[in-house]
Amino acid sequence: MPNSSNTQPFLKVIPLGGLGEIGLNMMVMEYDETLILIDSGLMFPEDDMLGIDIVIPDFSYIQKNRDRVRALIVTHGHEDHIGAIPFLLREFQIPIYGTPLSLALIREKLKEHGLLERSELNQVLPREQISIGPFQIEFLQVCHSIPDGVGLAIRTPVGILIHSGDFKIDNTPIDGRRFDMARFGAYGEEGVLALFSDSTNVERPGYTLSERDVGNTLREIFQECAGRIIVAVFASNLNRIQQVIRLAREFNRKVLLNGRSMAVNVRIARELGYLNFPPEEEITLQELARLPDSEVLMLTTGSQGEPMSALTRMAFDDHKKLKVQRGDTIILSSKFIPGNERTIQNIINHLYRHGAEVIHEQVRDIHVSGHAYRQELKTMISLVKPRFFIPVHGEYRHLVKHRQLAIDMGIPEENCLLAEDGSTILCGPDQISIGERVPTGRVLVDGKGVGDVEGVVLRDRRHLSEDGLVIVSLVIDKETSEILSGPDILSKGFIQEETHSEILDSAKCVILEVLDNLLEKDYEVDTSVLQAEIHRELKRFFNRVLYRRPVIYAIVVDI
Amino acid sequence: MPNSSNTQPFLKVIPLGGLGEIGLNMMVMEYDETLILIDSGLMFPEDDMLGIDIVIPDFSYIQKNRDRVRALIVTHGHEDHIGAIPFLLREFQIPIYGTPLSLALIREKLKEHGLLERSELNQVLPREQISIGPFQIEFLQVCHSIPDGVGLAIRTPVGILIHSGDFKIDNTPIDGRRFDMARFGAYGEEGVLALFSDSTNVERPGYTLSERDVGNTLREIFQECAGRIIVAVFASNLNRIQQVIRLAREFNRKVLLNGRSMAVNVRIARELGYLNFPPEEEITLQELARLPDSEVLMLTTGSQGEPMSALTRMAFDDHKKLKVQRGDTIILSSKFIPGNERTIQNIINHLYRHGAEVIHEQVRDIHVSGHAYRQELKTMISLVKPRFFIPVHGEYRHLVKHRQLAIDMGIPEENCLLAEDGSTILCGPDQISIGERVPTGRVLVDGKGVGDVEGVVLRDRRHLSEDGLVIVSLVIDKETSEILSGPDILSKGFIQEETHSEILDSAKCVILEVLDNLLEKDYEVDTSVLQAEIHRELKRFFNRVLYRRPVIYAIVVDI
Repeated sequence: MPNSSNTQPFLKVIPLGGLGEIGLNMMVMEYDETLILIDSGLMFPEDDMLGIDIVIPDFSYIQKNRDRVRALIVTHGHEDHIGAIPFLLREFQIPIYGTPLSLALIREKLKEHGLLERSELNQVLPREQISIGPFQIEFLQVCHSIPDGVGLAIRTPVGILIHSGDFKIDNTPIDGRRFDMARFGAYGEEGVLALFSDSTNVERPGYTLSERDVGNTLREIFQECAGRIIVAVFASNLNRIQQVIRLAREFNRKVLLNGRSMAVNVRIARELGYLNFPPEEEITLQELARLPDSEVLMLTTGSQGEPMSALTRMAFDDHKKLKVQRGDTIILSSKFIPGNERTIQNIINHLYRHGAEVIHEQVRDIHVSGHAYRQELKTMISLVKPRFFIPVHGEYRHLVKHRQLAIDMGIPEENCLLAEDGSTILCGPDQISIGERVPTGRVLVDGKGVGDVEGVVLRDRRHLSEDGLVIVSLVIDKETSEILSGPDILSKGFIQEETHSEILDSAKCVILEVLDNLLEKDYEVDTSVLQAEIHRELKRFFNRVLYRRPVIYAIVVDI
Repeated sequence: MPNSSNTQPFLKVIPLGGLGEIGLNMMVMEYDETLILIDSGLMFPEDDMLGIDIVIPDFSYIQKNRDRVRALIVTHGHEDHIGAIPFLLREFQIPIYGTPLSLALIREKLKEHGLLERSELNQVLPREQISIGPFQIEFLQVCHSIPDGVGLAIRTPVGILIHSGDFKIDNTPIDGRRFDMARFGAYGEEGVLALFSDSTNVERPGYTLSERDVGNTLREIFQECAGRIIVAVFASNLNRIQQVIRLAREFNRKVLLNGRSMAVNVRIARELGYLNFPPEEEITLQELARLPDSEVLMLTTGSQGEPMSALTRMAFDDHKKLKVQRGDTIILSSKFIPGNERTIQNIINHLYRHGAEVIHEQVRDIHVSGHAYRQELKTMISLVKPRFFIPVHGEYRHLVKHRQLAIDMGIPEENCLLAEDGSTILCGPDQISIGERVPTGRVLVDGKGVGDVEGVVLRDRRHLSEDGLVIVSLVIDKETSEILSGPDILSKGFIQEETHSEILDSAKCVILEVLDNLLEKDYEVDTSVLQAEIHRELKRFFNRVLYRRPVIYAIVVDI
């Protein structure tokens, strides 16, 4: 059994998140006295995580090894890779390494959390190498739905490890920054011990379209538009935004930016030179009002139907300054993320009610994925020729299928590992195996609370949400059990009280009967017995008359 | 303005549901003293309808005209067309007309609700005609994802109206019951005043695949399977079920039926001769255990990840008698209905964890829609050649696009109406227009309660679900304002109390401070003032320390 002493012959790789879910990406690599982290992302809450804002990885393994943590390497600036960094840096001092855009987005985030002062951000460009303890790390340019993404080639005492990051292979990217095929190939030729590769789209056959193809479809749509054009897109998809801005120029339209994150990301990308968007092409709301519709383009957030976004408010006629009007063409240039479909379709219906035309990914090719499809995943394996293969970034079924893809390509079955969050992957120069598990998990963030809402609390929220709440209050005399006050009944989320007061009146009778029955048996009534009886009888009563099971509180006080 | 007197020259068509949503299909047709209904369907609750079981149409227009209602015509046996019938028949006595399978499914439903005795069910076969007052109605055979579906040709004093029902055009259906193209054409040739046509799939180009194509893909999959095969499918999709049963025979597998609705529907379909499934091909759980895996096939419900279904319980290892095992192939032969995607994918992940292989519509063509695609919708219009066109069955955007499709085919724009739930469509022999609105809406059913949970109650449920609940109870002396009992704090769905008791302790201090402050100002404390103050200060306190806004109840009693 390997241990962590100085003579440790094994390198350990431990995914803390992202192997068993989409999002929450975080990985530990450690050798001897050095531990580095790759990414620290959040996940958006699942449907049953009521009231939860975001989900972050469990840092307890980092806590336990805090003295050895030397660096956080960031592959790109999406929330599922950087979103947990403020929570990480609140507890630990860790230098961060990343490409310019990723760092700029992290900087913005740390500023918001008041953590920027005490943070160390180190810029690394693609093909640059950094050394951290026994690790020599080269950043390899990849394509993704945000610019400046990288994969990692990590030279270690046991061999070379390649981490794909989130990637697609786009041979005609908008910004000219191609997937660095040659460099991946060079490592492959040198000999790679293990490849950790993005599994998100393993269920999709063939190749992703190029980002450029979206531009062509958008051009066709622009040609047909006489009125205003409103394009909803993720604010981080800066290559998409660049294409829209170029098309606006081509069709003599001026651009209004809408939404806070849109403004922030465009500002950052302009400053760093990732976006060609001359100030004279941008307009304000006031200027928009003076332009003919045919010269207006709006870039907005809200493509997922986020409740507070400009697009949603426009759809529901709830935006102070912007109205959707007949003749508008609204283009939702992003994926319908599973779970958001009905919300988005609801918004589309409302946009049609205002007389707009709506174009979305389900009717036209106006979005391409940022994640490699099956043929690209195979290309990655052909380039890198790893001895061992470990699928990362995906739900369980994605990992299973990606592993099978590698086996089908001829990597021996025993060299293709199925690791999960918390698996310790033990890497030696000639073998890789999965060792013991370390504690990992999903830490729920609700407001300022981190990890204080878990199983029981969520179950209670679910229960409250289903049939609401009934509160009974009653004060009785300690000596005589005579009623001093009440019974009063409050309800919330249970029934329309105004129109169904008879139900609550009958419930009062149930309570009085309970009290009478107890008094018949015994002169002195115990409040906890009375509470339990009221609870039981009301539960039975509501179930009988309404077939409903509200949360019931019976508060009985004796004085 | 038309009126409802005896001399009324207009026929009225009023959709009570289904024009603005998927589901809830119900339509009124009335002329003079006769009113008939077409379908009476339910809708499944939207995401924000917390705790709601089903949604039914508002019957108040029927209530108002109850003396004139003569018949309910049913186009097919899906829940979104028959699911509200028990609620309708609870209030009204209306004879029902439908095809054998539709009636059998309705009968089952009425039996459950104890309404069968007082119901009148009249069987009509395709190409049969019935007369109800001034309406002469012919049932026209169509294809759909349940057998025995019909469209309606309704001869009226103002002209012929065609209602498509839910349809697709399948030239190679499994049961040989083709879409009755010739009969639709004959009416078209005779001259049709108006066509009401299903809009569900207007966003999809081309043609739907034939049900038979699914069979071919299933055969390919069966050929690859050495272990058990588990097929999850809607219990009403009896043609799909027939195909699976035939394939089981072909591959020498015996069939286990799993799930209550599967058993009921298969029984009914067998009795009526809609399913060829000899008893010797069916096995029980005991027999299954004795067969080799390669001779087993299971037909199960649960393709939408319904929490109590056999498939879900098997996935979560929560089924007493059935376990998923390595080598099983699980085929989800149905659509991922929007809103259910994440639940279904979660189940797929769990099935993979048990070592099963899972095949679903997103990776292979093992499902076809029951609703016509664009080319079929055009075929319907070409056959029927209506003078007026009214899209039905769809969300708002579907209706808009279907109307546009008809205009693109050459029907004059002014003859293509965009009606919605509650629109009165006034039909004369030479014109159709939209008149005044009648009350319609979505009536929410929660347990036994119909319509007693609405806006405010749902908002309260939402609020409770987000940050939970805090209840404060306090009894004070009426004279001295001295505390007699409390303050006690209960919370639910708010915070893990065991690990964060300090928050609730601090909240108690906040309450005591509120009381002290009031006492300083005034000797006698008003309980309602005290309640309001406690509420305000606790709200502020929780927002400050946790950034959370639970529902707060302060119950203060003075004795």
